[in-house]
Amino acid sequence: MNFAVAVDLGGTNLRIAAVSEAGELWEKITTGTKVALGRDVVIAEMTAAIEQLAAKFSASGQLLGAGIGVPGIIDQRSGLLRRSPNLPGWHDYPVRQEIERRLGSTVALENDANCAALGEAWLGAARHAEHAGMITLGTGVGGGIVQCGRLWRGLNGMAGEVGHITVDPDGPKCNCGNHGCVEQFASASAIVRQAREAIAAGGAPQLSAAAQDPAFDARSVDQLARQGDKPARAIFRKAGWALGVAVADLVNVLNLHMYVIGGGVADAWDAFAPAMFAELQRRSFVYTATAPAEVAAAIAAGSPIPLELQEAAWNTIVTRAKLGGDAGLYGAARLPMIERLQITGGP
Amino acid sequence: MNFAVAVDLGGTNLRIAAVSEAGELWEKITTGTKVALGRDVVIAEMTAAIEQLAAKFSASGQLLGAGIGVPGIIDQRSGLLRRSPNLPGWHDYPVRQEIERRLGSTVALENDANCAALGEAWLGAARHAEHAGMITLGTGVGGGIVQCGRLWRGLNGMAGEVGHITVDPDGPKCNCGNHGCVEQFASASAIVRQAREAIAAGGAPQLSAAAQDPAFDARSVDQLARQGDKPARAIFRKAGWALGVAVADLVNVLNLHMYVIGGGVADAWDAFAPAMFAELQRRSFVYTATAPAEVAAAIAAGSPIPLELQEAAWNTIVTRAKLGGDAGLYGAARLPMIERLQITGGP
Repeated sequence: MNFAVAVDLGGTNLRIAAVSEAGELWEKITTGTKVALGRDVVIAEMTAAIEQLAAKFSASGQLLGAGIGVPGIIDQRSGLLRRSPNLPGWHDYPVRQEIERRLGSTVALENDANCAALGEAWLGAARHAEHAGMITLGTGVGGGIVQCGRLWRGLNGMAGEVGHITVDPDGPKCNCGNHGCVEQFASASAIVRQAREAIAAGGAPQLSAAAQDPAFDARSVDQLARQGDKPARAIFRKAGWALGVAVADLVNVLNLHMYVIGGGVADAWDAFAPAMFAELQRRSFVYTATAPAEVAAAIAAGSPIPLELQEAAWNTIVTRAKLGGDAGLYGAARLPMIERLQITGGP
Repeated sequence: MNFAVAVDLGGTNLRIAAVSEAGELWEKITTGTKVALGRDVVIAEMTAAIEQLAAKFSASGQLLGAGIGVPGIIDQRSGLLRRSPNLPGWHDYPVRQEIERRLGSTVALENDANCAALGEAWLGAARHAEHAGMITLGTGVGGGIVQCGRLWRGLNGMAGEVGHITVDPDGPKCNCGNHGCVEQFASASAIVRQAREAIAAGGAPQLSAAAQDPAFDARSVDQLARQGDKPARAIFRKAGWALGVAVADLVNVLNLHMYVIGGGVADAWDAFAPAMFAELQRRSFVYTATAPAEVAAAIAAGSPIPLELQEAAWNTIVTRAKLGGDAGLYGAARLPMIERLQITGGP
């Protein structure tokens, strides 16, 4: 069976996989290479691993190419990485050309959140949705839009930056230059920042105690929220509020079938989803016109939304991602399956 | 030459035209029929005029069908008009089926702002843009998204409701149920509401005097702004601010080539555009990464943006509409040219 090699270049590690056209993960390598060692080491390791997996499975089927997901804004016309907060030293680096030069083949390079969107659309929560948007709640907030199984890239590949939708025009300053982006309320960094603000303001003893742990993170805040800690719960309600405002904008503008919420912070779904759905119903008449009454009832009752409603053809569905941390890897593998790459050489 | 019949059902009048595949307006009829007379009278007049124009030009070429633009939210799966603030009595009316029953042919029914977007993309400001969004500043704020010459309709045709992007989450209540939609700042109704608020607050003597005229409207506020009246200028700055926030969201999410601003209030471009561009630059890193420095310089200097920059292939362009009140009519005519309709009968 035909296959592709996928690369997921994270902020800390590099993962490479061989994935079949049927969506089977044949092999996954998590390299010891630390991104901190710099781009030359990372790219050498990446190309070596791509060649290794391509050779290993060459008898199993035809290699369709390599798809590479990177954290950052890619200008598709030039292949330059234009913004990459988690990859210091890669700014305006011609990533695509450099990998292609070393491999001797064209590759598909894509923003990691776009890859995750494509992965969820191919094999995950949105596999039955004709058109889907994804919001990835990680260190930052990313996203991607998939129409008929393909990424909507826009003019030069920068589409899908849903994390920078303004939800509070006078809100906290964002790294992107804007104020009050949804990223400033619903990313892992924003959860921690809001926890520290609550601690500084006083009246958050449990958060204050938890923050003594050097490993204190968004997950720690979620754990306290699950235990009923009011300041922790308020932080996730605010995150849900911000997501509700942003998703309402997306529903009104795009009228997609499905909006999938993934990334690490999505594990705190129970803590933020009720506020998100309440805001969405209040702010999007397109949502209320297209989400069935049973969904509203389930939300009001705090029950999970029945699966058959999630997959009904004419309902707007907002739901959790299904592929976890592998979404981006599956999406990167999908790229060479739906794009025409020039594959040369080979073992 | 092949042609289509276009209908633009406005809040007050009905206009019907024959338009050739080359975009020539062969004939335009503005009927005396007032929409206030009710849907049966309007639909009878509409179908009679469609048949009249179809017969008149039957020797000139093949009729490709009729395209009809209506002010309201259409559910394309059912053909029902779901929301139509300016068409009382049409709520949940099966407009498409009723017209098709009377004509004996299928027709294309579309939201009027979507038609305007398609018209501008076909023959207007966005004629060279591969992908374009339109924002129509009328009584309300509507919009549409065109990708590769076709409307992006979404799940059931409700896409493009850019007027209901939230720009101030605690802002004025909107007819749609949300608070702080861009429509509450940049529509003709919002301009008048803000003028009346300024008058009530005192310190707006010129607006107060102008508002004595029963014909006082957004245009009156624009006239005062042009004369330098500070309260009038502040209202358009606020409209520009709101548009800037909303367009920044669109640029970050969609990364389209062009965003076209039309509708009656767009005539006040000089009064709101500087604030809009300032906000857009501040809020969208995708915009600053894709709009050339010369555009920023022209904006800062208050100069018009050079035409060659507006049409450059890799720049994000935000500009004024070109077809005026006929954009929707041209867009409605375009629908049967790019969709497959079943045309039966004929003279």
